[in-house]
Amino acid sequence: MNQPLPYDRQRFDAAARELVENTRELAALGWTPATSSNFSLRLDDRHAAITVSGRDKGRLGDGDIMVVDFDGQPVATTQRPSAETLLHTQLYRRCPDIGCVLHTHSRVQTVASRLFAADGKVPLAGYELLKALHGNATHEAAIDLPVLPNTQDMPELASRVDRLLDTQTLWGYLIDGHGLYAWGRTMAEARRHLEAFDFLLACELDLRRLRA
Amino acid sequence: MNQPLPYDRQRFDAAARELVENTRELAALGWTPATSSNFSLRLDDRHAAITVSGRDKGRLGDGDIMVVDFDGQPVATTQRPSAETLLHTQLYRRCPDIGCVLHTHSRVQTVASRLFAADGKVPLAGYELLKALHGNATHEAAIDLPVLPNTQDMPELASRVDRLLDTQTLWGYLIDGHGLYAWGRTMAEARRHLEAFDFLLACELDLRRLRA
Amino acid sequence: MNQPLPYDRQRFDAAARELVENTRELAALGWTPATSSNFSLRLDDRHAAITVSGRDKGRLGDGDIMVVDFDGQPVATTQRPSAETLLHTQLYRRCPDIGCVLHTHSRVQTVASRLFAADGKVPLAGYELLKALHGNATHEAAIDLPVLPNTQDMPELASRVDRLLDTQTLWGYLIDGHGLYAWGRTMAEARRHLEAFDFLLACELDLRRLRA
Amino acid sequence: MNQPLPYDRQRFDAAARELVENTRELAALGWTPATSSNFSLRLDDRHAAITVSGRDKGRLGDGDIMVVDFDGQPVATTQRPSAETLLHTQLYRRCPDIGCVLHTHSRVQTVASRLFAADGKVPLAGYELLKALHGNATHEAAIDLPVLPNTQDMPELASRVDRLLDTQTLWGYLIDGHGLYAWGRTMAEARRHLEAFDFLLACELDLRRLRA
Repeated sequence: MNQPLPYDRQRFDAAARELVENTRELAALGWTPATSSNFSLRLDDRHAAITVSGRDKGRLGDGDIMVVDFDGQPVATTQRPSAETLLHTQLYRRCPDIGCVLHTHSRVQTVASRLFAADGKVPLAGYELLKALHGNATHEAAIDLPVLPNTQDMPELASRVDRLLDTQTLWGYLIDGHGLYAWGRTMAEARRHLEAFDFLLACELDLRRLRA
Repeated sequence: MNQPLPYDRQRFDAAARELVENTRELAALGWTPATSSNFSLRLDDRHAAITVSGRDKGRLGDGDIMVVDFDGQPVATTQRPSAETLLHTQLYRRCPDIGCVLHTHSRVQTVASRLFAADGKVPLAGYELLKALHGNATHEAAIDLPVLPNTQDMPELASRVDRLLDTQTLWGYLIDGHGLYAWGRTMAEARRHLEAFDFLLACELDLRRLRA
Repeated sequence: MNQPLPYDRQRFDAAARELVENTRELAALGWTPATSSNFSLRLDDRHAAITVSGRDKGRLGDGDIMVVDFDGQPVATTQRPSAETLLHTQLYRRCPDIGCVLHTHSRVQTVASRLFAADGKVPLAGYELLKALHGNATHEAAIDLPVLPNTQDMPELASRVDRLLDTQTLWGYLIDGHGLYAWGRTMAEARRHLEAFDFLLACELDLRRLRA
Repeated sequence: MNQPLPYDRQRFDAAARELVENTRELAALGWTPATSSNFSLRLDDRHAAITVSGRDKGRLGDGDIMVVDFDGQPVATTQRPSAETLLHTQLYRRCPDIGCVLHTHSRVQTVASRLFAADGKVPLAGYELLKALHGNATHEAAIDLPVLPNTQDMPELASRVDRLLDTQTLWGYLIDGHGLYAWGRTMAEARRHLEAFDFLLACELDLRRLRA
């Protein structure tokens, strides 16, 4: 390990601290059940810091963050990244503006993904909180949150996401029976998007029960 | 900035501390998703202290509180107030008794606002907790919580609120798809009113599901 | 105030500390919205310590606990007890075994009280947790939790409770649109009974929604 | 007590600390209402450490953990183990791989147990989180979580569990009106299984309400 690292060590240390702190907060909300979920931050135009696979997200330490390249391969480490790393790195490679990707499994996200899977999307309209999504200036915005079929074939999932990005601005998507991906230019923006989607999905489920 | 401030600096400092502490507690309840919501305290008969726009309400510091006049304009600061500042200051200008205005976006508030929007109000009756609203001495009180249509046109919203205040005693109102405004003579009373409304709306939604 | 106190000061101090600590924990559960709810401990065969009326139960201090006699009258203090004090003291006077009375307003308690008010009781059967109620040794126990009509006339409410106690063993009751009273020989037992009732009511509401 | 202990004291001390810490965390989730629930760790091929009966699981201390043999009998102590100890020790005796057994009473677990009691099982399919159960590598797994009838006759319950284990791999089961048993090779794995079951049951209940 006397070779120089291909990424900036100080930048990684700061990203690792930011990931650990934010991951603990999201775990405290109950959004990372049973060691699920993964979180990443862009380091530069070829590397990202990401949570190591299979750790309890409520007990994360600095040693639980690793570096991957944009093919999702580990860099200068023997740690194993999550199987879903490719869904993070495809976003960093394609969109230079994206600085943070968050993937969680809240109960609301999982239930909504199953309920709307056949439609392929959750339509969201009429909420002030749509203004929380970067680029929306009014509650009159209406957006569709895509729901993708689940698969263990990550390149297949990644290519579906790519096709979605070809035709629309997107700050997140659901995977059926699985959870939510949300992202932003910074951690703060990605968390704002994540919270907004979870809140809007929760309201949609409540309204559906109440209007039944 | 050598000009004297047009408001009492010590009073502002105390109000800022009170706002930061209470805002954090309300954020911890999940009532301020995705940097939404805003909170204010009256300083005198021309000024109020209010949360700066767009901050994460769970991480607020003293620097995130600013002063506005009762037209909603910033005073002695370059910070930007929330777009909805006018809905706070119209209450301070009109009612000398009002000392605190709280605006939150809980899931219950948002769902109830959409469900009752067509009726223009949520009727609340039969609850002991109606006694928590200043002026009510019995659970036999019955009140209507108004639901206003949402708009980004604040003067239009403010004039609707003015017309409501012309005809009734009011401690709060909902905006469709948006959230709740509640107020009181002090922070403690405004919080009691806010909690009471949120609780009563939650009970109404539960009863509606259970009696369906 | 040079007259000797008619109760044991050390006993009061210990009771006040125990009440403050337990009240804060119950407030943190959201069971005391909008300054509602009240809590007491027996001091001797004529006095009880009880929370002062109208305080925020999440911010209680030692000065927020006072002494009342079993007619519900303040003893050696100018503080005002809750209007519902008589519902506490009638239990201490009647049953020497009762050492603690807890009255809360959780959402589940309030909703259940309204839903079952017309029946006058909530039947609870088939739960292992019925064993948490003192005297029950098996989940095969079946009990009815009474629901009383609400009124601001405390002597009227107290006399209804008295008539219930004439005919059955009772560890709690609901008041319509209001909340739950639960009690026990000690604070620990009263809290166990309170938690058990809240849990069983929550399960009943869920099952009713799911079996609709 | 000058006789040597039949188990390793240091191992017991470490197990007691691990049990106390994890029990408090589970209590904070509200999964141990009214002093219910019990938790154990294997010490060796004849002994387990287990929570003492009837304690408030949110206030547990080191003195609230005791040792039992695999017949469920207390070892070198006068403390009383839970009536359900046999359901823990039968697993340790039968399966040398099992190192930890957790029994909780969450609202979701209790409600699901009653709703699916007549079917004798909860079918779980289509969830990414099924991968959290040791041995499952894909969300395409489908499992049945058994629901046993409740009884105070522990040997009867234990023999039903034994018959289930004769025919299938199992990481948990429900008891009607009662709660969930989940286990694993370590505390971390048992908690992952417990969290996964609770989450999947919660999703199933939500979907049932939403698809009604």
